[in-house]
Amino acid sequence: MEAVEYLERLAASLSRLPGVGRRSAARMAYRLISDSRGMIDDLVLSLKEASDHVRFCPQCGNLMTAAESLCRLCASPERNAKVLCIVEDPGDILAIEQSGAFNGRYHALMGRLSPMHGTGPDDLRVKSLLDRIAREGFDEVVLALNTNMESDATAGFISDILKSRKVRVTRLAFGLPAGSGIGYADSLTLSRAIEGRQPV
Amino acid sequence: MEAVEYLERLAASLSRLPGVGRRSAARMAYRLISDSRGMIDDLVLSLKEASDHVRFCPQCGNLMTAAESLCRLCASPERNAKVLCIVEDPGDILAIEQSGAFNGRYHALMGRLSPMHGTGPDDLRVKSLLDRIAREGFDEVVLALNTNMESDATAGFISDILKSRKVRVTRLAFGLPAGSGIGYADSLTLSRAIEGRQPV
Repeated sequence: MEAVEYLERLAASLSRLPGVGRRSAARMAYRLISDSRGMIDDLVLSLKEASDHVRFCPQCGNLMTAAESLCRLCASPERNAKVLCIVEDPGDILAIEQSGAFNGRYHALMGRLSPMHGTGPDDLRVKSLLDRIAREGFDEVVLALNTNMESDATAGFISDILKSRKVRVTRLAFGLPAGSGIGYADSLTLSRAIEGRQPV
Repeated sequence: MEAVEYLERLAASLSRLPGVGRRSAARMAYRLISDSRGMIDDLVLSLKEASDHVRFCPQCGNLMTAAESLCRLCASPERNAKVLCIVEDPGDILAIEQSGAFNGRYHALMGRLSPMHGTGPDDLRVKSLLDRIAREGFDEVVLALNTNMESDATAGFISDILKSRKVRVTRLAFGLPAGSGIGYADSLTLSRAIEGRQPV
């Protein structure tokens, strides 16, 4: 294989990353190749470590290490086991934890309903959510989904299902700016949204 | 180590790539972790292959494979050995080759003079350039550097050195749009710039 082809193959792998187009992937590949300070080795090591050690909690979907059987938040006896916060992605759990305004349990759906991307209810962690609600006896379920059309539809879908479940369902206050994501909000905005949550 | 720390370490490695900020590195790391279609394995493989197989030609600085002792262009007897084209980076060689307008040899300086980044003449492949000019007897040296202040200063520096060398020095026509780079120009623009090259 020609040297250029290795470069093109690397660029193709890089262009699968979010926000990376063909041009910037080529520039990244080229920078990686010509770097003399171990950028490739460093990136390979970080990728392998993450791949080897990071898992998703089988209960809530949060990040955990391969050595754990449940994530820190599910395993902790300090958390309020009566309140469940439903988020789209584990990254949202991180953001809410950083706000310090919530001390209950979490459940990550691992996405949201998206007919355009072919994501239906069966692609989300809905069944395990219903199992947990039946089993763990929560007093309140907080919907902490993003504020866009697909997320709103997902919130509507989840709250409809939960109507028959005899559990109080709330959602974050509309303090979040429309069209944005939970992962992008600052801690104060998230705190206010959690404090101002409203019954559905 | 916590799961989040692996994620942060991966994001730190990714943020060393050109054009990748803290936020987008975090988003990339997260996407890599949560991807189920082998994105990490694919990227690790591409990185290792590139790292294992891609080298720089000891003569001109062009990309070559580890199995080669000189790059294709240096090794080819078909190229015009009397004309030398000086570029900043091997990526520029690729772009010029794609234009098809040049059939001589190349010499990549591996950068340009940049007092701001601490890049002086000794950091560029200037000595090997002078050795080649003394040894290979070129009739003409074409300066094909980018069109920005640092590159212009580099072109001035090189042409000053070459004045005493009894070799005709030309530079690409100013058909290139100002402030842009050779790697970004389309083949037609590059062809015209090569055809319209002027004595310095």
